Amino acid sequence: MDQPADGRNVKLLVEYDGTDFAGWQAQSEARTVQVTIEDAIHAVTGARVRITGSGRTDAGVHALGQVANVRLSTRIPAERLADALNANLPPDVAIVRADDVPWAFHARFDARAKTYRYDVCRRGARPALGRRTVHHLRSRLCPERMRAAARMLEGRHDFRSFATVDPSRRGASAVRTLFSADVDVRDDRVRMTFTADGFLYNMVRCLAGTLCDIGRGKREVDALPAVIDGRDRRLAGPNLPARGLTLVAVHYDGYPTRERPPANEADSA
Amino acid sequence: MDQPADGRNVKLLVEYDGTDFAGWQAQSEARTVQVTIEDAIHAVTGARVRITGSGRTDAGVHALGQVANVRLSTRIPAERLADALNANLPPDVAIVRADDVPWAFHARFDARAKTYRYDVCRRGARPALGRRTVHHLRSRLCPERMRAAARMLEGRHDFRSFATVDPSRRGASAVRTLFSADVDVRDDRVRMTFTADGFLYNMVRCLAGTLCDIGRGKREVDALPAVIDGRDRRLAGPNLPARGLTLVAVHYDGYPTRERPPANEADSA
Repeated sequence: MDQPADGRNVKLLVEYDGTDFAGWQAQSEARTVQVTIEDAIHAVTGARVRITGSGRTDAGVHALGQVANVRLSTRIPAERLADALNANLPPDVAIVRADDVPWAFHARFDARAKTYRYDVCRRGARPALGRRTVHHLRSRLCPERMRAAARMLEGRHDFRSFATVDPSRRGASAVRTLFSADVDVRDDRVRMTFTADGFLYNMVRCLAGTLCDIGRGKREVDALPAVIDGRDRRLAGPNLPARGLTLVAVHYDGYPTRERPPANEADSA
Repeated sequence: MDQPADGRNVKLLVEYDGTDFAGWQAQSEARTVQVTIEDAIHAVTGARVRITGSGRTDAGVHALGQVANVRLSTRIPAERLADALNANLPPDVAIVRADDVPWAFHARFDARAKTYRYDVCRRGARPALGRRTVHHLRSRLCPERMRAAARMLEGRHDFRSFATVDPSRRGASAVRTLFSADVDVRDDRVRMTFTADGFLYNMVRCLAGTLCDIGRGKREVDALPAVIDGRDRRLAGPNLPARGLTLVAVHYDGYPTRERPPANEADSA
């Protein structure tokens, strides 16, 4: 699409509590983050537009730093646009900031990396405060074992053992670079944080489930390389529930860039 | 009350999301944490008993570590009692643990200190994720000014300038020892944590409001001693809303102790 004379491209930093959403992406009938924001844009500007997210998030998954872009012709300055949208959005979604970006910027194709975290509450009693954003595990988890396993996950690997849908069936690559996998423990909370150039479908939830299996002694740290090398989903641990998963940040470098990064086509977590 | 032959005293560590509660203390018609737990105890043991909290918390105030004790005659072991209560409690309250304690232990009279925290989200956009437990302030806050002020609050003072109800009107002391007042900043979140031998009514919310006034430049750090010394509620900052306030822990030392610590009679925050 060529840029019209009054055309603007606005980058939105989006926070949401995914509990009551059927995920990011528009679906008929369902309450989704995308459509909720598009409705707010319509209320503020009068325009019916599509917004482009950096990727889908599933039902129940949260975001502190989802990124979307939207092409508009409103004259409202970006900062006031964020305020106006927030006044028209429900309490469980907010535009943290809005910025004018070059016309060519594309929230999905230009994403260079993403950071997700997965939060677990490990104790006998279920959590009450903050229960919307943590997964409850009664098992004891050994942080040292989890950290040792996280180190092994880092780097460039074929991650299809950790993906619900094998991208190679559609001729796409399952190779991703996991820049970092960290395990932080504070009291009874365990936070696993993953940054990669892309994530396969359900990959974070499966990595977190595998690390928890290792932490509770159900799997050995040393068995992890065989799980990776086996390229078979049945070798890895369970997908943990959506509730504990949060998209923390989407990383970009200088835009505009039109090129599509390799292997990111099917990305979502 | 003398201990019956089958009498037990059980200490409960209680977590709750205060959003949908009219506070801790039983009131007719209102949904309170105390009555919710008493109803669960009735469902599990068949007994109608009163539980004793370490103190009241107001409507909307949360707890990670509220403490209560309850005298019972059930034979259910303490750990299984916690599980059974959790199975009979709504999602917004949980018994983190239950422990048998000496008959004389009293959750309120034996409390030696409490820790509260107050969480603020300071940015233009309102928070969406975690919005139930933070107060939103659009102002920029200077952490250094807040920390310098927090240092001045520490120690033994007459805190009536920070209390909604002046305890001296009922002949009680407003002197408390604030063991620590800390200000932690992470991204756009500011957490103020206070530990004292007791808190006056609304004291934490007023301390937090005063520190935020100082952080945003509405008050000077150097003016704080005059606020304390003035012993007049009108000199301090506003009470921040309940939503950002969490009772983190109640501190006890060796029990049993029957003595009542001085000046704690009216304690609540």
